[in-house]
Amino acid sequence: MKFNISNPSGFPEFSPRQEAVRQQWLEQIRQVFRQNGFIFIDTPLVEREENLLGKGGNPKEIYALKRIHDEAADTSHSGNALRFDQTVPLALYVARHRNELVFPFRRAVIGPVFRGERAQKGRFRQFDQCDIDVIGSGSLSLGNDAQVVGIIIELFQRLLPGVGFQVQLNNRKILLGFFQDVLGVTDDQIKPVLDIVDDLEKIGRDAVIDKLKALEIDSEKIEQLFALMNLGGTPSEILEALEKIEAGELFVEGVSELSEVVQMLQNMGVDEGYYKIDLRIARGLDYYTGTVYETKLTDYPQVGSVCSGGRYEDLAAIFTGQKLPGVGISIGLTRLLSQVFEHGILAEQPASPSQVLVVTMDEVEPVQKKALELGAQLRSGRIAAENYFESKKPAKKFEYAQKLEIPYVLVIGENELAAGEYQIKSMATGEKVMVAEDKLVDWFLF
Amino acid sequence: MKFNISNPSGFPEFSPRQEAVRQQWLEQIRQVFRQNGFIFIDTPLVEREENLLGKGGNPKEIYALKRIHDEAADTSHSGNALRFDQTVPLALYVARHRNELVFPFRRAVIGPVFRGERAQKGRFRQFDQCDIDVIGSGSLSLGNDAQVVGIIIELFQRLLPGVGFQVQLNNRKILLGFFQDVLGVTDDQIKPVLDIVDDLEKIGRDAVIDKLKALEIDSEKIEQLFALMNLGGTPSEILEALEKIEAGELFVEGVSELSEVVQMLQNMGVDEGYYKIDLRIARGLDYYTGTVYETKLTDYPQVGSVCSGGRYEDLAAIFTGQKLPGVGISIGLTRLLSQVFEHGILAEQPASPSQVLVVTMDEVEPVQKKALELGAQLRSGRIAAENYFESKKPAKKFEYAQKLEIPYVLVIGENELAAGEYQIKSMATGEKVMVAEDKLVDWFLF
Repeated sequence: MKFNISNPSGFPEFSPRQEAVRQQWLEQIRQVFRQNGFIFIDTPLVEREENLLGKGGNPKEIYALKRIHDEAADTSHSGNALRFDQTVPLALYVARHRNELVFPFRRAVIGPVFRGERAQKGRFRQFDQCDIDVIGSGSLSLGNDAQVVGIIIELFQRLLPGVGFQVQLNNRKILLGFFQDVLGVTDDQIKPVLDIVDDLEKIGRDAVIDKLKALEIDSEKIEQLFALMNLGGTPSEILEALEKIEAGELFVEGVSELSEVVQMLQNMGVDEGYYKIDLRIARGLDYYTGTVYETKLTDYPQVGSVCSGGRYEDLAAIFTGQKLPGVGISIGLTRLLSQVFEHGILAEQPASPSQVLVVTMDEVEPVQKKALELGAQLRSGRIAAENYFESKKPAKKFEYAQKLEIPYVLVIGENELAAGEYQIKSMATGEKVMVAEDKLVDWFLF
Repeated sequence: MKFNISNPSGFPEFSPRQEAVRQQWLEQIRQVFRQNGFIFIDTPLVEREENLLGKGGNPKEIYALKRIHDEAADTSHSGNALRFDQTVPLALYVARHRNELVFPFRRAVIGPVFRGERAQKGRFRQFDQCDIDVIGSGSLSLGNDAQVVGIIIELFQRLLPGVGFQVQLNNRKILLGFFQDVLGVTDDQIKPVLDIVDDLEKIGRDAVIDKLKALEIDSEKIEQLFALMNLGGTPSEILEALEKIEAGELFVEGVSELSEVVQMLQNMGVDEGYYKIDLRIARGLDYYTGTVYETKLTDYPQVGSVCSGGRYEDLAAIFTGQKLPGVGISIGLTRLLSQVFEHGILAEQPASPSQVLVVTMDEVEPVQKKALELGAQLRSGRIAAENYFESKKPAKKFEYAQKLEIPYVLVIGENELAAGEYQIKSMATGEKVMVAEDKLVDWFLF
């Protein structure tokens, strides 16, 4: 039988040199989330179909599970499917553990989600999503909205050192209030108008105008909308301009919330270069109700938003019967990393974690023994060290280190053994130094 | 509509305090794997059905993926299924990248696998499997077999500090050679006899004897088999006894391999308390051909093997057309952790990673501002610090810290602000100290 060994279409596979970067990123993300007090939760990748569909899942994209052998007869498994985001599992988790949880509940999660979309470039059917959410009980302070901005900044400073980025802030209430009170958009048009505005970056100004006109919004009002969305300047300047606009309660509430978040960012000492107010940010998802975030790489606008999220007032009422407010962000790690490599934003890393390869020059017992000893000694000094065990010519051993980009080779032969000093060869420079056994760990550490 | 919010049957969910342990374990496992030069590879959770079935997958247990909306018409997705182990994906990966890989290829993976088994205690339909494998091209030195033992020991010293464990070593060739040459077992009986022996621990000596008799193996030979399997003593004593047994080539080869592995363990300076030769270890899986490992917790025999694996001579010939030898181990993390908690082998950990909760005593701007500043300052000093933002009574704020087992609360009020010193309260002892702003990070670090 001939097997098709290629990856199933639409499922990601990073090369070992890319995976090394992915592992470093995961480490950094975990650290930042933990340092900010977020609690990791790992729910199964599988949920009940009806729960996924009940909270916004698209039946065309959800993968249901069926055992191969006898689908018709299989009742014990029917009705389970792979999660399509991290929010439904969070909502179910909170619903299940409502009484044990301590609120505000700060939850972090990193893991794969699945969407059966049509396979195309940049779209994945399995991708890692890294989310944090703060869930309140009854109420939730805007301090959390501000802190989330701080976390985004800390994350991208670590993930993409030296790469410019900016968090774009808005508040849904400002847009909605403006639509209602200034533009006179009717309730049933709010959602279509929001969707059109959300597409601005994708379809351009002219297309947005055409679409709004098709909804019978007149030109003058469209001009007013663009005037709002194009407000520029520092956060303080924009807020000042917003405070002058005459609109209703919702709008004013939005401006006040945004102003409070900005004030807190200033109090936290966050550098103003890292964030700005952008009144065009609408976020597609219905369920955001206040602060919304997007994050752009300033030198790579083609990448789109690399971290988005916002404030919502109802996490899980369909499951809990109670409205729980929350604020959160999500990084689509798989898509982001694949773009980072595509645009050369970050260099790939050596696949091997080894700092040193321990090789023997002579196939005699005392030399082999010493190599095992020294390898173990290095590792117990927390140096990533690997023994090369195969009986090959020396050139082959060095070639292994060179191909895997292992920076150093520790050479052990009968001469070295006799001298009690071992050769360390730098693979990058070819430089060789002799180091005594009891100095080896220190040599690599310092 | 009423939703069933419970976890789908058979899918694991750890509590936040258990998940904190799981996260620490994952960190340790990654560190040990990396320190030994293993390269992380993360293939999709989804593979082609025919590939899973082609390499030992049980169609009764494999979950195939079907999109909900229109299963019949769905051709683009048909034929994909969730992986049931980490070995088939490795085999496919190596087959795909045979020409780019550097051999020996040391691959590490940590991630979930899926089996649609009947739901029962201790069995999971989704569980994390942590595997390392060293894959050779053509040949692979026995040094790798020894190093794997070193890694198991390092792992369990870190995962379960103070808990006794022992790696049990055997070599399949010894058992097979003994079956053939001493017991005269025919080729087609080899596999049934191996399975019976593998069940020894589960079904007991008498049942094994009955089953072997049913295969028409006479009592005297069964006695000889038990004499072999019960050989005890130090590795050197057992090897000495084995060398005296008259058997064929395969047996002798097995003894020589096992002896070499033990010799290398001694050369690596591995403490003999951590491993022993146990000739009863057979390992169920067909594909092991040499060294086999199991690992037992000596104080908790009921837990069974916590880390198993071995040497095989054919990773993926059905995919590559070439035999690639390898040696590897696997930890069933989900099952192991659930047993660790069940038997109280390890204490659960505080759910929150926060070392300190920053709280304000007065709702005035300068105090709020200072709290934000100090929170940010602590975090940039790599202290896990969390600001409490909600407007609640002080008692509620301390209760939050206490419930989440956050060890310290940093208290900021107008008095503290005026003094430039802030109160740190230990939640465990109730002790309070005043610390100046510029000494805060150091206080937590040292």
